[in-house]
Amino acid sequence: MDPSDTTRLKLTVHYDGSAFHGWQYQPDQRTVQGELQATLSRLADSPRVAVGSGRTDAGVHATGQVASVDMPARWDAPTLRKALNATLPSDIWIQSAEVAPARFHPRFDAIARTYRYDVGTASLAASPFHSRWCWVVPSVLDVDLMRRAAQRIVGNHSFRAFAKSGQPERGDRCSVHRAEWTEWSLGHRFQITADRYLHHMVRYLVGTMVDIGRGKRPLEELDELLAGAPHVQTSPPAPPEGLFLALVEYPFSPSTAAPKLSGSNTET
Amino acid sequence: MDPSDTTRLKLTVHYDGSAFHGWQYQPDQRTVQGELQATLSRLADSPRVAVGSGRTDAGVHATGQVASVDMPARWDAPTLRKALNATLPSDIWIQSAEVAPARFHPRFDAIARTYRYDVGTASLAASPFHSRWCWVVPSVLDVDLMRRAAQRIVGNHSFRAFAKSGQPERGDRCSVHRAEWTEWSLGHRFQITADRYLHHMVRYLVGTMVDIGRGKRPLEELDELLAGAPHVQTSPPAPPEGLFLALVEYPFSPSTAAPKLSGSNTET
Repeated sequence: MDPSDTTRLKLTVHYDGSAFHGWQYQPDQRTVQGELQATLSRLADSPRVAVGSGRTDAGVHATGQVASVDMPARWDAPTLRKALNATLPSDIWIQSAEVAPARFHPRFDAIARTYRYDVGTASLAASPFHSRWCWVVPSVLDVDLMRRAAQRIVGNHSFRAFAKSGQPERGDRCSVHRAEWTEWSLGHRFQITADRYLHHMVRYLVGTMVDIGRGKRPLEELDELLAGAPHVQTSPPAPPEGLFLALVEYPFSPSTAAPKLSGSNTET
Repeated sequence: MDPSDTTRLKLTVHYDGSAFHGWQYQPDQRTVQGELQATLSRLADSPRVAVGSGRTDAGVHATGQVASVDMPARWDAPTLRKALNATLPSDIWIQSAEVAPARFHPRFDAIARTYRYDVGTASLAASPFHSRWCWVVPSVLDVDLMRRAAQRIVGNHSFRAFAKSGQPERGDRCSVHRAEWTEWSLGHRFQITADRYLHHMVRYLVGTMVDIGRGKRPLEELDELLAGAPHVQTSPPAPPEGLFLALVEYPFSPSTAAPKLSGSNTET
């Protein structure tokens, strides 16, 4: 197909990660990218690639994953959104579809990503209407201590200690713009915004901060981990079910080719 | 086993009905009663029967189902609750376990049951984090009209028109103590309290009221249905995923043998 007959669209995608082997296409596994591409290819009547802003692991959810796809020009954005939501499996939902600049790339253009992690400490968090989407921790947590831990994460650090596997070609340094614990109706919510993340980084950070909050290890070990002290190890990673990719930000509005000063990726 | 060696316990049960063929045990299907009895029998080391307050259909949820079970006296209520929650599948959760009078019967002793039905009209209701547990109705509904419809349901009526199948041995009359629509963050919530229900009654009522709310049929037809007019039919039943058994009330506290004046089944 002549590329001039296609339009690049930006999709904002929600998914319940419970029944997926993560975002990334795998031939023999149910993945979000695989399901999305299968549906897009059916609608386009030819194979389509959905490029995501980044992978999410098995069991991790999203309320703000961003994907791009080049669709035949007969598909305008609102019609495509309706057709996708009518035919995708019920654990994927397209929140919005917009025309994007022709060179828009969800991964390379992203300037910040925000994750949220919910920790359920109330008894009711174990109910099936909540436990599907949080980490159930039946303990009293010292939130002041966890907030102090979060403050130490903000800034540019090597997060090598908080990575499942290294990405030596890009280094271990990440710039964390925001990291904070807030109250959540059934416990505590962690939100972090950074330019990039190492593999499993948010889950290692949450696992370690929750252990600090329940008095299992001192706050000072977080400093040591950030300083790369060789004898200190993180706590086990928090489980995937509490983690959501919440927002991916770009330096321009999706329908504008020229970069703007501030991102405009809104979230409901 | 000598019955004097057992204690009757009252369980308050949450379940996500999505993956169950309803409450009632069926030999070749996954049901809530079947899973609960299998776990209770394992813990008791002998076959246990869990008596429920009533059946719920395939796909219907509960935040207040009540069941009784006779357990060996070595199982005190708090320990049983912990053991059940540690071993039951994650779509069933025991909110509370209490010692009940020896003759306590969850079905025959119940004096009122409350169901809730959520109708999602906001765009976000279609997200997988909400659509699992509501009926997604992408229409503007006339809530004033639906509230007037709900008021007409209150009282003692024959609900024969709102039943999938008759229960001639017990008649068609039900006393509805309360029926009302309230605002819900993503749309509208219907709550109904009655002494008894006919099969699919809440879903027929909701399906008919939503059709009134979207202007598909006049309010007056609800009166005709309640009056038994032979030429009028209900709307199709609302789907099961929006329906929750929310509360079952008894005339006595569970741990007190002597009846009291008011129910004490609390809900969180």
